[in-house]
Amino acid sequence: MCIDLNSDLGEGFGQWTLGDDDALLSIVTSANVACGFHAGDPVIMRRTCETAAARGVVIGAQVGYRDLAGFGRRFVDVPPVELADDVIYQIGALDAFARVAGTRVRYVKPHGALYNAIVHHEAQAAAVVAAVRAYDPGLPVLGLPGSAWLRQACRAGLTTVAECFADRAYTREGRLVPRGVPGAVLHDPARVAERSVRMARGEPVEAVDGTPLTITADSICVHGDSPGAVTMALEVRDALKENGIGLAPFVEEKP
Amino acid sequence: MCIDLNSDLGEGFGQWTLGDDDALLSIVTSANVACGFHAGDPVIMRRTCETAAARGVVIGAQVGYRDLAGFGRRFVDVPPVELADDVIYQIGALDAFARVAGTRVRYVKPHGALYNAIVHHEAQAAAVVAAVRAYDPGLPVLGLPGSAWLRQACRAGLTTVAECFADRAYTREGRLVPRGVPGAVLHDPARVAERSVRMARGEPVEAVDGTPLTITADSICVHGDSPGAVTMALEVRDALKENGIGLAPFVEEKP
Amino acid sequence: MCIDLNSDLGEGFGQWTLGDDDALLSIVTSANVACGFHAGDPVIMRRTCETAAARGVVIGAQVGYRDLAGFGRRFVDVPPVELADDVIYQIGALDAFARVAGTRVRYVKPHGALYNAIVHHEAQAAAVVAAVRAYDPGLPVLGLPGSAWLRQACRAGLTTVAECFADRAYTREGRLVPRGVPGAVLHDPARVAERSVRMARGEPVEAVDGTPLTITADSICVHGDSPGAVTMALEVRDALKENGIGLAPFVEEKP
Amino acid sequence: MCIDLNSDLGEGFGQWTLGDDDALLSIVTSANVACGFHAGDPVIMRRTCETAAARGVVIGAQVGYRDLAGFGRRFVDVPPVELADDVIYQIGALDAFARVAGTRVRYVKPHGALYNAIVHHEAQAAAVVAAVRAYDPGLPVLGLPGSAWLRQACRAGLTTVAECFADRAYTREGRLVPRGVPGAVLHDPARVAERSVRMARGEPVEAVDGTPLTITADSICVHGDSPGAVTMALEVRDALKENGIGLAPFVEEKP
Repeated sequence: MCIDLNSDLGEGFGQWTLGDDDALLSIVTSANVACGFHAGDPVIMRRTCETAAARGVVIGAQVGYRDLAGFGRRFVDVPPVELADDVIYQIGALDAFARVAGTRVRYVKPHGALYNAIVHHEAQAAAVVAAVRAYDPGLPVLGLPGSAWLRQACRAGLTTVAECFADRAYTREGRLVPRGVPGAVLHDPARVAERSVRMARGEPVEAVDGTPLTITADSICVHGDSPGAVTMALEVRDALKENGIGLAPFVEEKP
Repeated sequence: MCIDLNSDLGEGFGQWTLGDDDALLSIVTSANVACGFHAGDPVIMRRTCETAAARGVVIGAQVGYRDLAGFGRRFVDVPPVELADDVIYQIGALDAFARVAGTRVRYVKPHGALYNAIVHHEAQAAAVVAAVRAYDPGLPVLGLPGSAWLRQACRAGLTTVAECFADRAYTREGRLVPRGVPGAVLHDPARVAERSVRMARGEPVEAVDGTPLTITADSICVHGDSPGAVTMALEVRDALKENGIGLAPFVEEKP
Repeated sequence: MCIDLNSDLGEGFGQWTLGDDDALLSIVTSANVACGFHAGDPVIMRRTCETAAARGVVIGAQVGYRDLAGFGRRFVDVPPVELADDVIYQIGALDAFARVAGTRVRYVKPHGALYNAIVHHEAQAAAVVAAVRAYDPGLPVLGLPGSAWLRQACRAGLTTVAECFADRAYTREGRLVPRGVPGAVLHDPARVAERSVRMARGEPVEAVDGTPLTITADSICVHGDSPGAVTMALEVRDALKENGIGLAPFVEEKP
Repeated sequence: MCIDLNSDLGEGFGQWTLGDDDALLSIVTSANVACGFHAGDPVIMRRTCETAAARGVVIGAQVGYRDLAGFGRRFVDVPPVELADDVIYQIGALDAFARVAGTRVRYVKPHGALYNAIVHHEAQAAAVVAAVRAYDPGLPVLGLPGSAWLRQACRAGLTTVAECFADRAYTREGRLVPRGVPGAVLHDPARVAERSVRMARGEPVEAVDGTPLTITADSICVHGDSPGAVTMALEVRDALKENGIGLAPFVEEKP
């Protein structure tokens, strides 16, 4: 039994840093690397790709809205044609650094408000799917089970990979409780680690109302930019290992 | 006998347009396409690549400083490591659109203040050379004969392509007369066309002081954003053809 | 009888120009000057303010979303607190150039997607109102009659100024027909001029379905960036004058 | 006997933070607040101005090159006319938040590469001087003694304020030892505090070669973004107080 651990990385910009990328790149198996539109810059992208490649961490394109000031967390009503081109641009830019580091971009995961938008926004979901297909129809896409994004990607012939969040509360319908709601984010590393193990095994976890809920996922997302993020990620990793669950990327690195 | 005609294209941004790309893409054989740092955006890049590919015009990466407000025309003292990464980023982003259009970025030509800086600035020239080598050592680079840029590129094993300017005055030493100086830019299409033919044939043209000057070049740069640019480019093209000089890109499109 | 003519001006950026500001500044009485977030840059802002001041054209702040790539035409779900600060920043920056030109920013008019959003989006409308009040509660605000923007501004004690569009079709309810709909924009200068006169007089014009519709407005907006914009604006101006309607800004320039 | 303590503040951007502004605003008497071109954004500017105003800390405009990616630390060869307008824009934007906080921008201090450039670059120095004069000739300017910046500002009739760096080594000629040189930055808080006292009293300190050097300054700059910045600033403040040196801004807050 195996599961992937993914995390958002390379999210600094210029002089500004965010999160402990170096520590997380020793923990996770897949790195969602920001591509410069909402975070990340060329220097950070190159370094993150180099370190990821050196440690066998798979590189994915963390694509987002063109919104540095808002860190990609504000919905932007970009016309789908423009959004598709923005996504192609970002994947291409990151792929350059992945190539320079001896590897390639292996998957695509939208970020922030774009991630949330394409759970429901069919036209923007279609645009991101079209962008991935145009760039490389062999690229898997990572996202929320049940989202328009994964549904459309699947129909378009892309490989879809479902992720779950061990540190986020779910409704009984399997949706994320919005961040503003009390209890939406779990802060106890032991509890989050325990939920990770259950999720990896396909065992039910408690929804926010206490209902048992089974979440099927190929990857667990661990957050990189919150206080205690590294500790939390380490606990999750250790708990998985101690319970005999292997850590492996959902997509193979090719030689 | 053959020569390449290159022009800066795709230099709009968002709502703003610059030059008549469509007309020029029917005239030139190589398109230096802006990559979004000093001009160009993803939509414009995709469209320019599509049109170029459809018409058999070769696509080159017009890389520049990160300076939209200055159109890349202001020297920026970027540390070489950052400059190299900025260039890799830009090539990668454009290459994505070239791939989507069924082709690839086939060469690299720096723009504006970066073009001028790396005539002499050895450290920045080295950075751009390093970037091209890291991305793809098979990519030719286009620039000014005698520049640090072409000299270093040659030593690093890159294919170098020299260009000349039929509408610019040269000193007797073969340098461009700076734009501010009266007479630096030639506006008479007939004269520019006649100089193009001489340059293509390797015959001497008049330097600014009347001295005969022979310029050896594989490509003639025609400007795209000045008033009368299209007329000028057409005259150059027609004069070359009428004089039995073929127009062909300096790098072959591969199937 | 008097009416104001307002137009969006100063909408270039860096190397890129848009519209014929110089011509329009000889026609309109109020200039909505872009402030650098969706269009405009410091050089353009200074020049536009200088010319406006020299010709007695009143300067208003054309505030928008931080979205150069989208020209402020894409809705951005900015949290209201951030939006208010974005607006204060823009007004302050433009006011600097207005002061340098010997005058002041005299009113505020939101642009593009922000203009459209705050017709209905109460929280964003409240944010822009709060920003104007915080900067200077004596500043009038310009916008669409019936919008949340003008309604909230009025309740907050700001002076509100209603504008109408002589070149846009209206529904029988007095709303603008969306741009995508056929017939939404009128292109015949004579017809637009005639509607301007009717609107200035408070006489009914035809709604899109033929119903007579009376629109009460203190200012007519003429567009500056469409082909034929200057001709259209001149026709409107001449028609108003010929019909004895004076042209005067809705807010006085103070000495 | 009195001296001013100034520090660079408000240098985050969007999601990214830099330094402990809140702590430093309890230590310094003058806050050089970034204006959004190389650091800072509207939300950060408003908050920094509010806190500064509430604590009686004087607000100055920390103006810089338009270079978020380089944090304003890369020389940009901006034409002087454009630079002047960039500076007016920045002062005006910050002044808006100072006004909203019940005060005003009281001085101007260039940042980073612009600070360094206008020590010698006469044309850029003249541009910044012209900008300050155009905006408000009553605004004092803060900078390095002996710089073209202060010399030109003085000739133009502006009030000039000289600053010194207690944590930086000086040459015997009174110039800063460049950051790259070993020993250029002093890290021992006790030594820096002792130098601060000597500088405030006009007593000689040791130049890098051991020569005694007297530096005359009205303000001591303490850095805000290095590790241990707050500790260092506190030691400086305490040492000054213990030695009977009052801390007071060089410009008075007006009611």
